[in-house]
Amino acid sequence: MDKPDVGELTPPDRTLMGPGPSEVHPRVLRAMSTPLVGHLDPSFVEIMDEVQDLLRYTFRTDNQWTIPVSGTGSASMETAIGNLVEPGDTMLVPTNGYFGGRMASMAERAGGEVVHVDAPWGEPLDPADVAAAFDEHQPDVFGFVHAETSTGVLQPDVAELTAIAHEHDAYVVADTVTSLGGVEMRVDEWDVDVAYAGPQKCLSCPPGASPLTLNDRAMAKVLDREEPARSWYLDLSLLEGYWGDERAYHHTAPITNVYALREALRLVAEEGIEARWDRHREMAGALKSGVEAMGLEMNAPEEYWLPSLNAVRVPDGVEDTDVTAYLLDQYDLEIATGLGDLDGEIFRIGCMGYSARPETVSYLVSALGDALREFGADVDVEAGLAATSRKLGE
Amino acid sequence: MDKPDVGELTPPDRTLMGPGPSEVHPRVLRAMSTPLVGHLDPSFVEIMDEVQDLLRYTFRTDNQWTIPVSGTGSASMETAIGNLVEPGDTMLVPTNGYFGGRMASMAERAGGEVVHVDAPWGEPLDPADVAAAFDEHQPDVFGFVHAETSTGVLQPDVAELTAIAHEHDAYVVADTVTSLGGVEMRVDEWDVDVAYAGPQKCLSCPPGASPLTLNDRAMAKVLDREEPARSWYLDLSLLEGYWGDERAYHHTAPITNVYALREALRLVAEEGIEARWDRHREMAGALKSGVEAMGLEMNAPEEYWLPSLNAVRVPDGVEDTDVTAYLLDQYDLEIATGLGDLDGEIFRIGCMGYSARPETVSYLVSALGDALREFGADVDVEAGLAATSRKLGE
Repeated sequence: MDKPDVGELTPPDRTLMGPGPSEVHPRVLRAMSTPLVGHLDPSFVEIMDEVQDLLRYTFRTDNQWTIPVSGTGSASMETAIGNLVEPGDTMLVPTNGYFGGRMASMAERAGGEVVHVDAPWGEPLDPADVAAAFDEHQPDVFGFVHAETSTGVLQPDVAELTAIAHEHDAYVVADTVTSLGGVEMRVDEWDVDVAYAGPQKCLSCPPGASPLTLNDRAMAKVLDREEPARSWYLDLSLLEGYWGDERAYHHTAPITNVYALREALRLVAEEGIEARWDRHREMAGALKSGVEAMGLEMNAPEEYWLPSLNAVRVPDGVEDTDVTAYLLDQYDLEIATGLGDLDGEIFRIGCMGYSARPETVSYLVSALGDALREFGADVDVEAGLAATSRKLGE
Repeated sequence: MDKPDVGELTPPDRTLMGPGPSEVHPRVLRAMSTPLVGHLDPSFVEIMDEVQDLLRYTFRTDNQWTIPVSGTGSASMETAIGNLVEPGDTMLVPTNGYFGGRMASMAERAGGEVVHVDAPWGEPLDPADVAAAFDEHQPDVFGFVHAETSTGVLQPDVAELTAIAHEHDAYVVADTVTSLGGVEMRVDEWDVDVAYAGPQKCLSCPPGASPLTLNDRAMAKVLDREEPARSWYLDLSLLEGYWGDERAYHHTAPITNVYALREALRLVAEEGIEARWDRHREMAGALKSGVEAMGLEMNAPEEYWLPSLNAVRVPDGVEDTDVTAYLLDQYDLEIATGLGDLDGEIFRIGCMGYSARPETVSYLVSALGDALREFGADVDVEAGLAATSRKLGE
């Protein structure tokens, strides 16, 4: 416990094209250096209202219960699952990626029983399989991952999945961590009961206050629980006192993170949510064209390609970690390797929020091409650059 | 879900002398606008090491398990209690303030049974009562509040309390939310097994990453649990994978909040922890002299006066909320009213971290005197100002 010798904070200047955090817009960084007001200050209550309105706009919902949870994305995830799942409830979760597994662990800790609907890593759920799982298990809660960060797969047919669940009187929880603000997600129109997200993906906001929305039906289940949620910090019936009409003290909100989220969401509204979805498709499309023209293969077919997280297959003979380390060292560029069943098989290249812009996409294609060539892959870097440039010029 | 019309972020410029958040040092605000690196970036791992070292210095401990929890103070509190208390364990908690009640709620949700050691709101625990409660209940875990934010009471005799607990083979959890970095707390010397804190009090750091330390004995209990902790997000055995030697992904750390905490703790180390404790006593001492000379009464006697949170009795005939609203409106100055058993009876005036400096203390005494006079209290504002000024000149 001697006095540590710690110098000035001088982290490297990275280009962030991994699975998150994405790069943060300068206006959001500036908002974070705003001096604080108290978490019960009348001016902060106004800011809370504004953030809730902006979140509703971004989630495409009129849900009253739309708040930032005071923690990173996994906190909003556990707030959703830990409140909705009561001891004795059955939750149906997918097996097609890392985050279905996390859902299962959270549901079990909440006292729930977990059943599965299967799909391989790298593929979406098939509605027929979901319907069969409902018939077999009659779950109370169904969770699915809209945008699987571990596999780069977009779950299509959301409205079809929610319809199956509602025919069975179940509640639907959607993981929109890597889609909110970057990929089309319509909470109300698609009849999603609960959705959660992280701020550090397509919203390009530093992690620390994480979006959550519940419709009245889901909130009624939460408020009718026989025993309280197993976490005090994440108990929605208590959070309702702070974020609802009463504005009563529960815990100290992460004020600066709420400031930042407000500014990040203001940028979403300025751009327009649909224009923002389009931009993600266009920028990631240019990235995809480039890596494909280079001779690489996307892991997901076009129908369930996830623009915000591009899973690119590692070419034969190349060690994935050699490439990611080289990109970090030589280019100050972060991308990630695969996880779980796709470990060693894919690169995960994010194209999210402020990182989804022409400069970063061009830089990525150029740097990745160089790195792969460095490690002996047979890639046509020039063709890749030309394809990306063409797409960006469209 | 129309596009909300939300303007630039322009919160008022408050002087923060409430129970937290305190004012944030400009260097810490500046650190928060630093662009992000990834949460698994080698440079971030180095920053994590530095923050852990700085936290050890501040807690006065060599504990390996010393980390910032990814949430506000209540998150580090629930991480401590939710991991240490297993289903079937008995936890002894105090009744002398708001935060003992929160401990009880968290322990029950963790599956524990709660027993109490009594003391009135506004008084510390008596070691004899603690010993008697141990004899009667034989608890497994004993929680106490070192610095009660709801009452302005400092718990003396910490080493005496921990000795009683350890004679009974129990684990001690200390709430140091309002003492860490401002009031003497020596985790190792006083034999505290687990301590948690919030960053937005005497560390003057925006809330969002909250200090926690456990000794090996407590961590062994956590790692030996028969069933996992009830929160995935706050599960220390999983957090250990990220903050321990492995540095494996668990959740996305609140990177910017870790940057801020690093800078705030660097300021602690630069000042020196003991010099910082002295400054808090001196600044709050000047505040206390001022309000006493004005004719007001402190709620706590000198022996357990808490410099970081000064509980001042509301003079007869004055409505507490009139005064706090006037201070906010006329002076942009935040102080708080009482809670629970002391509702309406005290003002709670923080003197923490960067808010514990001559300018803010003088301003507080002057503004509070004016407000009380405005609402008809018989206060000698001039005598108060003179007393504060004398103390600040010493």
